[in-house]
Amino acid sequence: MATSSLSLLLISSCIISVLLQAASASKTRHFKWEVGYIYASPDCNEKILIGINGQFPGPTIRAKAGDTIHVELKNTLHTEGVVIHWHGIRQFGTPWADGTASISQCAIDPEETFVYRFRVEKAGTYFYHGHYGMQRAAGLYGSLIVDAADGEAEPFRYDGEFNLLLSDWYHQSIYDQTVGLSSKPFRWIGEPQTLLINGRGQYNCSLAAHLIEGSNTCETTSKDCAPVVLRVLPNKTYRLRIASTTSLSSLNLAIGNHKMVVVEADGNHVEPFMVDDIDIYSGESYSVLLTTDQNPSSNYWLSIGVRGRKPKTSPALAIVNYSPNSPSKLPESSPPIAPEWNDYNHSKSFSYRILARRGAPKPPQSADRRIVLLNTQNKIDGYTKWSINNISLALPPTPYLGSMRYRLKNAFDAGTPPENFPSSYDVMRPPTNPNSTQSSNAYVIRFNSTVDVILQNANALAVNVSEIHPWHLHGHDFWVVGYGDGRFDEKDVARFNLKNPPLRNTVVIFPYGWTAIRFVADNPGVWAFHCHIEPHLHMGMGVIFAEGVEHVGKIPKEALVCGMTGKMLMHNHLP
Amino acid sequence: MATSSLSLLLISSCIISVLLQAASASKTRHFKWEVGYIYASPDCNEKILIGINGQFPGPTIRAKAGDTIHVELKNTLHTEGVVIHWHGIRQFGTPWADGTASISQCAIDPEETFVYRFRVEKAGTYFYHGHYGMQRAAGLYGSLIVDAADGEAEPFRYDGEFNLLLSDWYHQSIYDQTVGLSSKPFRWIGEPQTLLINGRGQYNCSLAAHLIEGSNTCETTSKDCAPVVLRVLPNKTYRLRIASTTSLSSLNLAIGNHKMVVVEADGNHVEPFMVDDIDIYSGESYSVLLTTDQNPSSNYWLSIGVRGRKPKTSPALAIVNYSPNSPSKLPESSPPIAPEWNDYNHSKSFSYRILARRGAPKPPQSADRRIVLLNTQNKIDGYTKWSINNISLALPPTPYLGSMRYRLKNAFDAGTPPENFPSSYDVMRPPTNPNSTQSSNAYVIRFNSTVDVILQNANALAVNVSEIHPWHLHGHDFWVVGYGDGRFDEKDVARFNLKNPPLRNTVVIFPYGWTAIRFVADNPGVWAFHCHIEPHLHMGMGVIFAEGVEHVGKIPKEALVCGMTGKMLMHNHLP
Repeated sequence: MATSSLSLLLISSCIISVLLQAASASKTRHFKWEVGYIYASPDCNEKILIGINGQFPGPTIRAKAGDTIHVELKNTLHTEGVVIHWHGIRQFGTPWADGTASISQCAIDPEETFVYRFRVEKAGTYFYHGHYGMQRAAGLYGSLIVDAADGEAEPFRYDGEFNLLLSDWYHQSIYDQTVGLSSKPFRWIGEPQTLLINGRGQYNCSLAAHLIEGSNTCETTSKDCAPVVLRVLPNKTYRLRIASTTSLSSLNLAIGNHKMVVVEADGNHVEPFMVDDIDIYSGESYSVLLTTDQNPSSNYWLSIGVRGRKPKTSPALAIVNYSPNSPSKLPESSPPIAPEWNDYNHSKSFSYRILARRGAPKPPQSADRRIVLLNTQNKIDGYTKWSINNISLALPPTPYLGSMRYRLKNAFDAGTPPENFPSSYDVMRPPTNPNSTQSSNAYVIRFNSTVDVILQNANALAVNVSEIHPWHLHGHDFWVVGYGDGRFDEKDVARFNLKNPPLRNTVVIFPYGWTAIRFVADNPGVWAFHCHIEPHLHMGMGVIFAEGVEHVGKIPKEALVCGMTGKMLMHNHLP
Repeated sequence: MATSSLSLLLISSCIISVLLQAASASKTRHFKWEVGYIYASPDCNEKILIGINGQFPGPTIRAKAGDTIHVELKNTLHTEGVVIHWHGIRQFGTPWADGTASISQCAIDPEETFVYRFRVEKAGTYFYHGHYGMQRAAGLYGSLIVDAADGEAEPFRYDGEFNLLLSDWYHQSIYDQTVGLSSKPFRWIGEPQTLLINGRGQYNCSLAAHLIEGSNTCETTSKDCAPVVLRVLPNKTYRLRIASTTSLSSLNLAIGNHKMVVVEADGNHVEPFMVDDIDIYSGESYSVLLTTDQNPSSNYWLSIGVRGRKPKTSPALAIVNYSPNSPSKLPESSPPIAPEWNDYNHSKSFSYRILARRGAPKPPQSADRRIVLLNTQNKIDGYTKWSINNISLALPPTPYLGSMRYRLKNAFDAGTPPENFPSSYDVMRPPTNPNSTQSSNAYVIRFNSTVDVILQNANALAVNVSEIHPWHLHGHDFWVVGYGDGRFDEKDVARFNLKNPPLRNTVVIFPYGWTAIRFVADNPGVWAFHCHIEPHLHMGMGVIFAEGVEHVGKIPKEALVCGMTGKMLMHNHLP
């Protein structure tokens, strides 16, 4: 008995010591950033884009789980505000640092500085990007990699890693794009000119030519657009961190002759499974393990192609370069070809295979509330919009977080948006009445309640068109509890996967299908939930969730100095 | 005696009645504007530009002297602030309505509304334009015409009038332009693609082709770029109101076979004089009288060409169409050709002829203070800048008006900028030490004192280059008391014209020359004084004058909700 007590004591003190060690090991990582336009040639064509400290993509943030990130961000744009969203970071206790203009904070004015300070509690592959207007599409993004805390380990092994941040690139400025999307008649942005890997691609220019020394036939020889080379040793295992911050494109990634094992999705471990290729939608991230077990005398193509829309953009290519081969040595086999753009069965079978790793937290077995969100393309006064339950999101000038916290009146539209859509609505056909309305109203969710959200896809305005939409939730991971084709039905609930649903922050709805997610509203704040396709969000494709706002701590004043919060605070405080 | 008293009484009551009538006749003119990007083809090439209520140029404001203008301006740009400056309006008592970002107000945030309310006290030809970043060059401008008050008359007669707002047009976006100007190595914006009259011009396209029906060879047939036609009757006198809001170009305007009589400059009457052509610099306005006394069976060209820089831009052409001729009837004589771009003697002789109309107010016969402002092109950390007395203006995020009125500390750089430059400085040669510094410091001027400012031109960075700079003063008209070549000298003061110097709000400095102005600091506020060339202002070519700020009334809160004023007011007012 005495011995056993002593053992317990020893074990306890050991645990405490480990905890203390972990606590003392966590760091605050300081960054000083200036956001401004720079010249760059991401696809060998020079253009201005929004860089950070003169870099594109922005600097990679690397931290360990438990660390605090402290970014002192100065806006050096000339006439534009700016914010940065830390995609996948849940911002527990710091909802004002979520970096969503009009939602969590005022846009940072030119020449002003705002400090983003938040904790990264979970290892994983994340990224950050602009979240104001279409600034993400202007190049304002970068990687955020969180390693396991000291003394912790990932549940898989690898010898090295590569980080691949994927994006798509347009030659038209975001101003031109935005005006077109907001015009009557509507002007669509079209397909991107180029796909980029780590901000580098080649427009109208053979990658091979780039690689063969002395035969560069491209107009520009800028280093900005040099092809990405993954230099590997034979018979090793590499972790590829893959994240997509595309404006529009859904992507497929494959490596010639090699299979991959998927181990992480959106900063959460998944039950490992082997694939030839992965689909990745804007807002998602994956880690895959690549074993270099092929003929080491050859190099191999890594190829990224467009999915879900008829592609007009050349695949992006990188080289898996087996050391000691020259990186210029062309692979013997041609680049892998992405599945047909509209082979949705391929996409679905990949998505359905993503399941939580054994031991991962399980969802509550029932939900307190169900919100069904019908995604439709609509018209408002002749303008083309996307709507959710017939409401197209129009953000207010005063950020929700401050106006809700300080109970400002008339800062945004009153009333709760609909929880469902009419049973008569036929999701397989264009809307019989395409007219919609704009609103800034928000879903207020009871703190700590469990919510199911059913994302219901439908036919767009044109006959036989239903698009892919990757939905991203701020402030939360959610469990993906079900997918289905056609219209969601009450009886589908019985088929929900409550055993091993994956935790994610972004999930896709397939054409004419539905996706069900569950989350616990345990994070005081105001959180955007929206389609991650930049032009779709601009056209109103999103909703606002508010939860436990009364528990939100002291919001930094800088986040409030705009709109009605600014004016309210001015009131009676000046002579 | 009794009779005489009665007469006086009658006269007095008559005067009072006239005054009352005038007072009651003055109106408040209401405008509701939305500022946002639109598609337009000002020179037959489609581009996005900043319009007002979907129009480019913005709507013309027409008022009578004594009226109050009330513009409720909503910013519908997506991520950019906006302000509008009412060029030539002195804003007595309303310095917060001057529309200068960082000086008189905070930029208006997207989706926010700001009310510009001010009195126009003096008849004349004015205009308005953006004054944030380079938004003026993005098309944000329009005309503001003030007619004589009821019962008042201009001191010249005319049968009709035309309004010609001149501008220059670039195909490169203002974002690209701004980045180039702010880059190392420096990228100059170059010469404009097209000159516009009332927002219309023709790039790479024969105007004649436009006019001859059925033979339009231009790519675009947009009405946006239809040539301007001045439809006149023979043997009448027309007032042409001419204002220039060019980004860069100095212009010359002439009409084939016709002379013009100059009667107004910048909203002030000048002693009438006859000319073949006029030079007009950015920021200036003129009225000229045109008598249609030529062969009425012909039409005539009105031609506008570039001066002061080697022109690479085709002249802008309009047609003076004698009724009942068809406007498509080509003039028999070819368009007037502007004087050689570097014929500065021609320019000077025109400027020197501009004198106050008899009876105009005379300047104080002496000044209380003299500020000499040396204009130099410089380098700061390798960036190309313009400096005044070796200080390149860098505007602070918090507007001066609020920060001075509420005595905020550290809102802008302390200390007074230099009143003069070293006697050893050789204005005829490039700077021996081109290094300069940036600052936001301001000239504080004693209220109601009389100030002389000597604008001293110099050689730019390159040998044998000295450029024209039109300087514009906010909040004031000033008397132009002297011009000279070379370096200003104390003995030049004796030659100042104190008898009939013209009142203006904009005046040019000629290459290697100086210009002397005098004004009374009788308008409480903070006023920009700067080169009106958009890229030069962007590069720091301006100074700040503050006077009687303690007498400034209640600044609208909306003008203050940014920067340190915003933060100060937040302080301790939130839980």
